[in-house]
Amino acid sequence: MRLRNNPEALDYLLSQEGLVYINPTDVKGKWHEIFGNDNPIFIEIGMGKGDFILENAKRYPDKNFIGIEKYSTVLTIAVKKAKNDEIPSNLRYLKEDAVRLNEVFDDEEIDGIFLNFSDPWPKKRHTKRRLTYKSFLDVYKKLIKDQGHLVFKTDNRGLFEYSLSSFANYGLTFEDICLDLHHSEGYDDNIQTEYERKFSPRGPIYRADVVVDKEKIRG
Amino acid sequence: MRLRNNPEALDYLLSQEGLVYINPTDVKGKWHEIFGNDNPIFIEIGMGKGDFILENAKRYPDKNFIGIEKYSTVLTIAVKKAKNDEIPSNLRYLKEDAVRLNEVFDDEEIDGIFLNFSDPWPKKRHTKRRLTYKSFLDVYKKLIKDQGHLVFKTDNRGLFEYSLSSFANYGLTFEDICLDLHHSEGYDDNIQTEYERKFSPRGPIYRADVVVDKEKIRG
Repeated sequence: MRLRNNPEALDYLLSQEGLVYINPTDVKGKWHEIFGNDNPIFIEIGMGKGDFILENAKRYPDKNFIGIEKYSTVLTIAVKKAKNDEIPSNLRYLKEDAVRLNEVFDDEEIDGIFLNFSDPWPKKRHTKRRLTYKSFLDVYKKLIKDQGHLVFKTDNRGLFEYSLSSFANYGLTFEDICLDLHHSEGYDDNIQTEYERKFSPRGPIYRADVVVDKEKIRG
Repeated sequence: MRLRNNPEALDYLLSQEGLVYINPTDVKGKWHEIFGNDNPIFIEIGMGKGDFILENAKRYPDKNFIGIEKYSTVLTIAVKKAKNDEIPSNLRYLKEDAVRLNEVFDDEEIDGIFLNFSDPWPKKRHTKRRLTYKSFLDVYKKLIKDQGHLVFKTDNRGLFEYSLSSFANYGLTFEDICLDLHHSEGYDDNIQTEYERKFSPRGPIYRADVVVDKEKIRG
């Protein structure tokens, strides 16, 4: 998502103590303490304007959710939007880049990861930047508990084709694959992102529910 | 493919000695002898009217091809069609059911398998009949050489979704996945089946190129 930079965004985020986290040393290994419970923790990497993670937090009060976004301007929009209503106590925000996830989470600290409509990086020379490239899978494997899930949605066919191979060739297994999420039975509980609402009429939304079974991973 | 049964089909097939094989004891472990060379052997399971395997045989004279079909009536159509022209010397036909493949091939006797537009068996209680169910993968693994390929095409979304999971969860890896074969670059060498020509205008053709890497298989 490209937006005009908001020079006051970072100041705003810094003012949201207890809701928005920016400093890795404040959070790594401390997430259960931050939430004040031992409920499972789910993160969305690159959450954009945050509808998806907010709706998850409302719908599943017995789980904790962290929306992660690297752009201050985008994160500020998400936080302000959420604050129009009462923010659920099981939701936090984190300003961080996906490449530094292991600086903000301890090993096995999280139970699940959502990747929604990540940048497809279609050029071959940018393969390593895709959030489903094996170096990212290395990180997810470390941070996620055994048998945790990585749930991936995209409307980008090339990225999905690539990602399915990347998951399988790494040794991850599939709980479910869906090649047209909005025209399939059994997905009534799907929570849409802003992007998904806008683009799903143009073509299929792909979804993979991937299991991180550490015994099976070859990586 | 449902066709009216031709009561004379089996007699016709029996008359095609050296081209059509029916008796397992004539062929198991003897395929290189039958072809008279050591070239790699590729099979198509459930070939239907045989356009795909015939075109492969013509295009790749340094490989051997076996078209397998369980229905005498269908196999007869394929053979007669092929005989309208000169039959390539690297092509044979086999009347057999997929469930008995290990009675007609020795372990590691083949280099690759083609599965094209197999019966989707959409009902859950018929899962075990799908040619990508794990009991079939067990057989393919035995018959196919290490690093051999299984190339799977279908227009059935449910079958493809199921099969991708089945392959990955078995420990097979992907050389390539394509979610819209007829609208993708890099597949100009695709050989269409009769069914594919007829049905591809109605929706995407899915294709997976699966690698049988025995070291990685968990099965």
